[in-house]
Amino acid sequence: MRPPKALTNLIGSFEKLPGIGPKTAQRLGYYLLHVPQAELDNFASSLTNLKKNTVFCDICKNISETNPCPICADANRDRSTILVVEQPLDIMAFEKTAKYNGLYHVLHGSINPLENIGPDEIFLEDLVKRAKTPSHEVKEVIIATNPTMEGEATAMYLMRRLREGVPSNGFVLTITRLGMGIPTGAYLEFADELTLTRAIEGRRAI
Amino acid sequence: MRPPKALTNLIGSFEKLPGIGPKTAQRLGYYLLHVPQAELDNFASSLTNLKKNTVFCDICKNISETNPCPICADANRDRSTILVVEQPLDIMAFEKTAKYNGLYHVLHGSINPLENIGPDEIFLEDLVKRAKTPSHEVKEVIIATNPTMEGEATAMYLMRRLREGVPSNGFVLTITRLGMGIPTGAYLEFADELTLTRAIEGRRAI
Repeated sequence: MRPPKALTNLIGSFEKLPGIGPKTAQRLGYYLLHVPQAELDNFASSLTNLKKNTVFCDICKNISETNPCPICADANRDRSTILVVEQPLDIMAFEKTAKYNGLYHVLHGSINPLENIGPDEIFLEDLVKRAKTPSHEVKEVIIATNPTMEGEATAMYLMRRLREGVPSNGFVLTITRLGMGIPTGAYLEFADELTLTRAIEGRRAI
Repeated sequence: MRPPKALTNLIGSFEKLPGIGPKTAQRLGYYLLHVPQAELDNFASSLTNLKKNTVFCDICKNISETNPCPICADANRDRSTILVVEQPLDIMAFEKTAKYNGLYHVLHGSINPLENIGPDEIFLEDLVKRAKTPSHEVKEVIIATNPTMEGEATAMYLMRRLREGVPSNGFVLTITRLGMGIPTGAYLEFADELTLTRAIEGRRAI
């Protein structure tokens, strides 16, 4: 006996999501059978409308309802600094700190040769163009890609592209990478060697 | 800066699912932004159609495309035995063993006073009616509710209901509970006391 097709379809859709295995997908599918139809319709319409009601901001490539996005449109933000992240979710993390008042740029991925993702598959050249304007409005680019193999490679490549071709007026764009070290609340005992090495390298006078 | 409404809606829908927390919901929502619209539409339609294209089988209350369900309609199945489970997924587990050829009955829950679920909120009386027919077609009821507090309570209550009112012709319905003990592949070292007690109680001559 096979479960009804409507159910297997739904389970199949759940299985395609990252981090959801066959067992979880099955559990979710059967769970939704007990949910009111109105809630299912609501879930369905938020899926269909997800991409219809969102756009990529032309400037920073963040996901937004408006174009340009609220951050790029905000006159109170410091337009001389761009913080480069891999994913829109990373912006949310920085916004929560309320300590950063510049602009952002979302790459939507990182350079990953194993998965055939090169610099052209992500919004990297868009950033280079944004940062290197003749007016030199942008003074600093903070590279905040993830501290993974791919993130580091992307940071390296991006840095090289930004350094290329010194402008005739001698302007030097500041390029920084996020500070590395021990995260708050962690135990030194459990920190890996690389994190500790980075923490020693990045030590500050107090 | 708040994420677009279409996205927050979707994240909200994911968060309502069991076992999916705010972080996972967020990750899934952002992931789906990179999925083709056709796949989103497909996911959405399987959600809307889930309950429209499925029915509860009138006999066993299992979820099915047809009524009665394929198992209840199958003339080759032994109609004298009913195996009672809490959820439709449990049927799938028994069907995979290919060792049971009787019918099923799905309660769609278990008695749980803490959540205000009494015998009337699940399909329990439907089973009592099915099992106690004047023709005595049903000879055995196997209670296969989960070995949890709620499952055991449901089994006890169901047993009492089935025993009530001895028929005038002296027919006695056999009521059994699934065997309890050590699961295959487990290490005795990690088995809890109750499981071991049940295993000793349920020991068999070899």
